[in-house]
Amino acid sequence: MVNNVQRVDDTWRTCTKSDSSGTSSGGESSKESSRSSTPVLDADRMDRLRDKMRRRTESGDHWFSLEFFPPRTASGAVNLVSRFDRMGSGGPLFIDITWHPAGDPGSDKETSSMMIASTAVNYCGLESILHLTCCNQTKDKITGYLSKAKRLGLKNIMALRGDPVGADWEEEEGGFNYATDLVKHIRCEFDDYFDICVAGYPTGHPEAESYDEDLRHLKEKVDAGADFIITQLFFRADTFLKFVRDCRAIGITCPILPGIFPIQGYQSLKQLVKLSKLEVPEEIMRVIEPIKDNDAAIRNYGIEQTVGMCRVLLESGNVPGLHFYTLNREVATMEVLRQLGLWIEDPRRPLPWAVSAHPKRKVEDVRPIFWASRPKSYIYRTQDWDDFPNGRWGNSSSPAFGELNDYYLFYLKSKSSKDALLKMWGEELTSEQSVYEVFTSYIKAQPNCAGHKVMCLPWNDEPLAPETNLLMDELDKVNRRGVLTINSQPTINGKPSSDPIVGWGPPGGYVFQKAYLEFFTSSENITVLLKVLKKYEPRVNYHIVNVHGQNTTNAHDMQPNAVTWGIFPGREIVQPTVVDPVSFMYWKDEAFALWIEQWAKLYEDESPSRMIIKYIHDNYFLVNLVDNDFPLDNCLWQVIDDMFELLDNPPEEQPTEQPAEQPAEESPVEDQPPK
Amino acid sequence: MVNNVQRVDDTWRTCTKSDSSGTSSGGESSKESSRSSTPVLDADRMDRLRDKMRRRTESGDHWFSLEFFPPRTASGAVNLVSRFDRMGSGGPLFIDITWHPAGDPGSDKETSSMMIASTAVNYCGLESILHLTCCNQTKDKITGYLSKAKRLGLKNIMALRGDPVGADWEEEEGGFNYATDLVKHIRCEFDDYFDICVAGYPTGHPEAESYDEDLRHLKEKVDAGADFIITQLFFRADTFLKFVRDCRAIGITCPILPGIFPIQGYQSLKQLVKLSKLEVPEEIMRVIEPIKDNDAAIRNYGIEQTVGMCRVLLESGNVPGLHFYTLNREVATMEVLRQLGLWIEDPRRPLPWAVSAHPKRKVEDVRPIFWASRPKSYIYRTQDWDDFPNGRWGNSSSPAFGELNDYYLFYLKSKSSKDALLKMWGEELTSEQSVYEVFTSYIKAQPNCAGHKVMCLPWNDEPLAPETNLLMDELDKVNRRGVLTINSQPTINGKPSSDPIVGWGPPGGYVFQKAYLEFFTSSENITVLLKVLKKYEPRVNYHIVNVHGQNTTNAHDMQPNAVTWGIFPGREIVQPTVVDPVSFMYWKDEAFALWIEQWAKLYEDESPSRMIIKYIHDNYFLVNLVDNDFPLDNCLWQVIDDMFELLDNPPEEQPTEQPAEQPAEESPVEDQPPK
Repeated sequence: MVNNVQRVDDTWRTCTKSDSSGTSSGGESSKESSRSSTPVLDADRMDRLRDKMRRRTESGDHWFSLEFFPPRTASGAVNLVSRFDRMGSGGPLFIDITWHPAGDPGSDKETSSMMIASTAVNYCGLESILHLTCCNQTKDKITGYLSKAKRLGLKNIMALRGDPVGADWEEEEGGFNYATDLVKHIRCEFDDYFDICVAGYPTGHPEAESYDEDLRHLKEKVDAGADFIITQLFFRADTFLKFVRDCRAIGITCPILPGIFPIQGYQSLKQLVKLSKLEVPEEIMRVIEPIKDNDAAIRNYGIEQTVGMCRVLLESGNVPGLHFYTLNREVATMEVLRQLGLWIEDPRRPLPWAVSAHPKRKVEDVRPIFWASRPKSYIYRTQDWDDFPNGRWGNSSSPAFGELNDYYLFYLKSKSSKDALLKMWGEELTSEQSVYEVFTSYIKAQPNCAGHKVMCLPWNDEPLAPETNLLMDELDKVNRRGVLTINSQPTINGKPSSDPIVGWGPPGGYVFQKAYLEFFTSSENITVLLKVLKKYEPRVNYHIVNVHGQNTTNAHDMQPNAVTWGIFPGREIVQPTVVDPVSFMYWKDEAFALWIEQWAKLYEDESPSRMIIKYIHDNYFLVNLVDNDFPLDNCLWQVIDDMFELLDNPPEEQPTEQPAEQPAEESPVEDQPPK
Repeated sequence: MVNNVQRVDDTWRTCTKSDSSGTSSGGESSKESSRSSTPVLDADRMDRLRDKMRRRTESGDHWFSLEFFPPRTASGAVNLVSRFDRMGSGGPLFIDITWHPAGDPGSDKETSSMMIASTAVNYCGLESILHLTCCNQTKDKITGYLSKAKRLGLKNIMALRGDPVGADWEEEEGGFNYATDLVKHIRCEFDDYFDICVAGYPTGHPEAESYDEDLRHLKEKVDAGADFIITQLFFRADTFLKFVRDCRAIGITCPILPGIFPIQGYQSLKQLVKLSKLEVPEEIMRVIEPIKDNDAAIRNYGIEQTVGMCRVLLESGNVPGLHFYTLNREVATMEVLRQLGLWIEDPRRPLPWAVSAHPKRKVEDVRPIFWASRPKSYIYRTQDWDDFPNGRWGNSSSPAFGELNDYYLFYLKSKSSKDALLKMWGEELTSEQSVYEVFTSYIKAQPNCAGHKVMCLPWNDEPLAPETNLLMDELDKVNRRGVLTINSQPTINGKPSSDPIVGWGPPGGYVFQKAYLEFFTSSENITVLLKVLKKYEPRVNYHIVNVHGQNTTNAHDMQPNAVTWGIFPGREIVQPTVVDPVSFMYWKDEAFALWIEQWAKLYEDESPSRMIIKYIHDNYFLVNLVDNDFPLDNCLWQVIDDMFELLDNPPEEQPTEQPAEQPAEESPVEDQPPK
């Protein structure tokens, strides 16, 4: 957090709305109030941050929040986003992203404050606060930032003055001289759209004339429209508790959240203390100085000291939640939260996929199953949709998915380096069979023949979900023979919503699934599979398509098939995933492209490895199968078994069918029958 | 069917649209094409009549249709509507209603052609054709009728000339001289909105110059825009088959449906033959003359003769469906259809409630369960809705139900007379207990103490559904003790959609229900019930309300609770009935009003019987209970048992609570505890 001084400036009391901010919150909320009763399962999701806080405070349910700063490099951004996912799973009420005036903070760069905050909201589903400093900025510039933030789905602003640039800074008539000016500007230009947070200084702001003077400035910020306060760090619980008492005494009634700084290292402590002009108490320095070169020891002390202080704060009854300065690190903060019992170890999924926190998506409650492992890609490709109807698409015949041309969007990038990918997927491929082995190693989470564990595939940047592990033996068996699975789910016939592996949604409910299997396989296999599938009509629905869009299906061409649904007390049915025939054709493009973009391009042009992947891309089919008879045992494995059986023992009279486009010359493929 | 002559009149080729018909079908269909993929289960329901015909013809699936004429009296209208319900269950492709120029056919009278056809469509869910004759009418008048028909949801017109009034009728320049003029006018003013049927004469129209001339007129009608032909009655299959061949020979390609007239009596045959100027063949007269005074014998002969002729027609391969002149009678036509195997004995419910055939309701797929036994009332009260969203209401907070002030709407009237109702419900009531006995007799379908079977209640004009019979013993037990049930359904955990009692929707699916129970009971019982319900939180959701709207619930105040749903191959989830908290308050008004309107008013003002009903109306509560835990055994009976148990054995310390508003003076009620 950057230092900040407050003062009232009467020039801000009257203000004229600029045209650019004609986007009032009124229109948006009235649109939402005309919405139907929404079966979105997480009631919180509909609330604004201040309401969530109020509700949690009233129920005595302590929360925590996490502060991050934007990274310096692109790979830092990729790492930070995956940290958001990991730390998001622990259940922070919100995160906040600091504003780095020197880092082009409002730009579209992947390291900008704006982009990091937008990613947290849109792709990680986190309620987020974007910091904003106003010092040395024009009103137009600030309004531009705020409009952009709103457009990106950000709903909360931490309003700060920021550090004046240069020593000769002077107050500017009618300019942004103090955070109060920014608060007023936000309220003036955007009405009540944003929730606004301001900074509090438990020991007074270093530039303030006095502690009391600083408290009065804080009251001015709140009176100007701030919704809650987060404090600068401090080292003793008493410091904060006295500060809260003093705030209440002068009539500040909004929530005041303590800024918690777990000491994580000697150097970072020194630097932060210097920046914030704070003094570290004697009793802490006495412990730290002797162990200053032992990082682990300092961190352990920091955890212990922080846990102790937080316990005092929470037990005081005056602290509804704790705000952590993470310094973009995980271990210490997570450990503190675990010891305090605030970290959610077993998160309940409100819906069985990663939700987005963009306000326009708060009613979203259904997605095609195809993107189950690529939710960020799905969110990206549907970011221009105006409507996320309850249960189905506005018009399934034109879902208008955005192109996914930029495979280098930082939030879609693999967390693994090219080198790591080559180790996992093979420095050199010799046949289709070596591709099959990569799939098998991934499914069994075992090392490949070169001894490297395969932790991801182009279609899934994470190890397999526990749910998929239920199918491991079957998956292993079919992948060995070239049924290259990229998505699957077992049959579920009414398991409790609290089931640790397949459960989702509120307690007291029951969840269901139709078995689903999606895979790539060769055209030879498809010829036989189609014969087999005739036996399974109408129980099994299938879609079979190659990269050119040649499509075979026995399903209605417009009607989605619900494959996951839940029944809950006092609610309408929720059906969060469907097999939608129309969006499958968009997914198909993406699924095939990933062969090339993420795998083939690891190898030299014209190299045999690249050509093997290219051959698969050009000749294999993408298949999805749904077993509609969910109360019975999943029959999809039997379908595949029957296909193998027919491949191994073809009937005499049947002429051997060749794939239509087998490229005789360029194919490096050994045409061995799979074993 | 009324006779008709056709001729082309060129004045109709050009026409100017009148303002009154500015309702074009284009707008409507484009609105519908932007609709989402709809999970409505009966694909047919989305189609227009001519498409249904085409599909059935292509698949070789023979159909039948039924012609009715408007009744003369109001009680005739009530009877006809219940006949629609009975005959509708046999699965006619459509019915048609003749146009009675003398009976104010376009008016709002309950006996008018327009109202009868509208009732068939809107309240009986039948695809219907309204006849319309144009002779002696102005264009404005005809356009007015057509606009009204469209507004009421009618989609099909049988375009006829009608009989000229008076002997001195002459062709009028630019007027409606022939049915062809009417066909052109409809196409001109309403584009393609209506499906148009015209009449064909297998032996030539009596007024036509010749058979061939008549065929040419028929071709002109078809060329002007008619979609299909229904013929005048005939007595020999050959007559019709020759007529079809002759039509095809001159280029008439549309469907031609034979008009089938089962002979049902000597007089009706004579009269019809006279009207239609047909001759009854010798071989038929020879059989009929000797038995002309034996109605049963004639009817049996008529059935036999008709079945034989229909078999020849269907086996010819040139007859896709049969159109029956019912003369508003059931027995003969149903028997013919049964013998032909065309009558559907066990209708599959496309949704588990009576659908409406109004085009704007074709996407309707959810209703509150409260109106389960009063679907016509629900349709009436929601007739002004513009939208029937998939799965939920546009805005649950203001469903805007219409008032149900007119309890004498003919399609809502009880089929029983006042006298019959008094016999069933008691000429004289002596206590609340005598009301309980009426409920018990109804549930057991047994005679009451006066020896009369109770076949209906104010909330249900039909005997109990087979599904409810599953609960008979429990219902009997609780009604005896003053838990007056008006709606209930058992738990269903995944029964096949083909189940003969509880199944609905297409084959291969599974249907589910949460147990539901709705009843009136005294305020004394409610006091105890509320204590008992605490033990069943959150498993049981309840709403408890009295006539004044005093409402107690543990459910979300906006969120509907799905209580019936189905899972089908290749489809989204369908949830056709819900307990909706908002519409329950509208239902409450109706449910309480029925005590007074349908029951109390049977008795003299100030009579003890009337005051007993009035006391119940004023003091009882309406309760609904949902058991959310559908995989377990229904716990709602246990809830009621627990209530009785607590009533019988009140804990010592509990002070007796009195109902708030017990009217000491006017109450004739004996305050005996129920036994």
